[in-house]
Amino acid sequence: MSQSLPRRLALATPVILAAPLLAGRATPALAQAPAAQAPGFYRFKVGNFVVTTVHDGYNEQSLDGFVRNAPLADVQKVLAENFLPTDKFRIPFTITFVQTPTHFVVFDTGNGVTPAGATAGRMIENMAAAGIDPAKVTTVIQSHFHGDHINGLLNGAGGAAFPNAEVLVPGVEWGWWTDAGNESRTPEFQRGNFANTARRFAPYQGKVRPLAEGAEAVPGIRGMPAYGHTPGHTIYRVADGNAQFVFLADVTNRPELFAVMPGYHAVFDIDPTMAEATRRRVFDMVSADRLRVTGYHFPFPAQGFIEKTASGYRFIPGDWSSTL
Amino acid sequence: MSQSLPRRLALATPVILAAPLLAGRATPALAQAPAAQAPGFYRFKVGNFVVTTVHDGYNEQSLDGFVRNAPLADVQKVLAENFLPTDKFRIPFTITFVQTPTHFVVFDTGNGVTPAGATAGRMIENMAAAGIDPAKVTTVIQSHFHGDHINGLLNGAGGAAFPNAEVLVPGVEWGWWTDAGNESRTPEFQRGNFANTARRFAPYQGKVRPLAEGAEAVPGIRGMPAYGHTPGHTIYRVADGNAQFVFLADVTNRPELFAVMPGYHAVFDIDPTMAEATRRRVFDMVSADRLRVTGYHFPFPAQGFIEKTASGYRFIPGDWSSTL
Repeated sequence: MSQSLPRRLALATPVILAAPLLAGRATPALAQAPAAQAPGFYRFKVGNFVVTTVHDGYNEQSLDGFVRNAPLADVQKVLAENFLPTDKFRIPFTITFVQTPTHFVVFDTGNGVTPAGATAGRMIENMAAAGIDPAKVTTVIQSHFHGDHINGLLNGAGGAAFPNAEVLVPGVEWGWWTDAGNESRTPEFQRGNFANTARRFAPYQGKVRPLAEGAEAVPGIRGMPAYGHTPGHTIYRVADGNAQFVFLADVTNRPELFAVMPGYHAVFDIDPTMAEATRRRVFDMVSADRLRVTGYHFPFPAQGFIEKTASGYRFIPGDWSSTL
Repeated sequence: MSQSLPRRLALATPVILAAPLLAGRATPALAQAPAAQAPGFYRFKVGNFVVTTVHDGYNEQSLDGFVRNAPLADVQKVLAENFLPTDKFRIPFTITFVQTPTHFVVFDTGNGVTPAGATAGRMIENMAAAGIDPAKVTTVIQSHFHGDHINGLLNGAGGAAFPNAEVLVPGVEWGWWTDAGNESRTPEFQRGNFANTARRFAPYQGKVRPLAEGAEAVPGIRGMPAYGHTPGHTIYRVADGNAQFVFLADVTNRPELFAVMPGYHAVFDIDPTMAEATRRRVFDMVSADRLRVTGYHFPFPAQGFIEKTASGYRFIPGDWSSTL
């Protein structure tokens, strides 16, 4: 060994000798525990497109009744196997931004302005951390019109949170929630979505463009019908040449529960049987094609892959990289 | 529906009507693709201790020969099943900090100063992003003396990167790498570690404290022998009351490969058979006890759980939370 290290430190009974070495050493002032969590954004490239997932925080939901067709104890067992809490259901929200050569797109818009102390509603501050200016977003693309996906269309003053954006919406979804005639065909606890749709889109009059089923939204981004969760729930395939990913929106809530148990029906699904069929069809596709996905309620940073297992599916988070 | 929304937008053939609605709308200036990745740190609490994992970047290694006892094609198959590259092996580095009421601890110290353009050596900048001042660290605790774990003991000027810290080291590891008599018993390609040990610890003379096997390092943190990867490789159990986690250091390299295939022997293991036995023993313990773990080469943020499977083990990342 180098002679710059004292050989006497290489000891058979090292702890005993340690004390004299340290005698008289000043104890440095103890740092305050740094309390802040890291900003919630993550970037990766898909071809030359730059994708940024931005966290909007989370909400907690009673677990009892969240899955409509399974006993609470079974649901708790699945959650425990996936090292998630079993006393409540934590639903995270993550928004996907895509920069293409021609458009700066955001898929869904988060919970918007929330009360002080709320654990959701952090998209704007996390966008700031990511260097994303809402005024630079050219295109909002909505998957469906549940409040946690459209409330962020409004800023704190009730105006357009994305003041320069065109808003592309699934035509079927738009048709449903803008026609009061559908109220009676909508579960009672979801009827507030009709008025909420009117309120949230109001500042975008003349800038809302309903999309036909399967239509291209902007170059490289195309809708794929994924009905069931809501009548017009739509996911999007994003492709730059051969490189592609799929924004899965609410094909599933947390994959640790509903990918592992694809037959589970979440309370928010308007047509749960159709939602399950959609989930299986989409998961079969993205797992067979090994397509990267982002999911709105996936664990942050909400990007990865779906693996088909013997009994269902499993979400495999994509590797985190410090470089793009 | 609300009368504030024009009913004519609810269309059967929405795309056709969209054009006139958008005619004359100015296209906003397209944002530059924001190029920066998120800072690499993540926080969680263990009891009242605050744990921060800090990313030090990654290195890429030839995959050929990295696993000593399996054909390349088999290794590539496992990597592909876990959606990792099959043309090279990417090794991430993540350092675990723990703030206790009495000590501010860092486990291992990263790659230190690296050449411009290197993908590793980002600990200091990520510490800054996390609000961690190296001068406030009271205690460096080393798992073992491979360069990617001790090089960061030095700052760019060759002085102590943690100028006020005591450095606690496994006594067995210290004894090995500070005794030139062990060189002949060390694989040739690892013999540089003797001189490197001398160099990296030099500025800490009088502040290095070798720990006896299984000894408490500081209140709440206790070493656990995990020999094999190196002769004195040691992991640490961190406990505040009943809340605890285990810093796994290099019990395994990437878990997607060596947890899934615990019998694989990595090229860096000095005694691969002992390293495998250690890995199985430690993984059996943390999976049975459902203990949270951090791992030095785990995918960032490098915290989660080990599940025992039919054929091996699987790392399940811990849920990412925007709150502590």
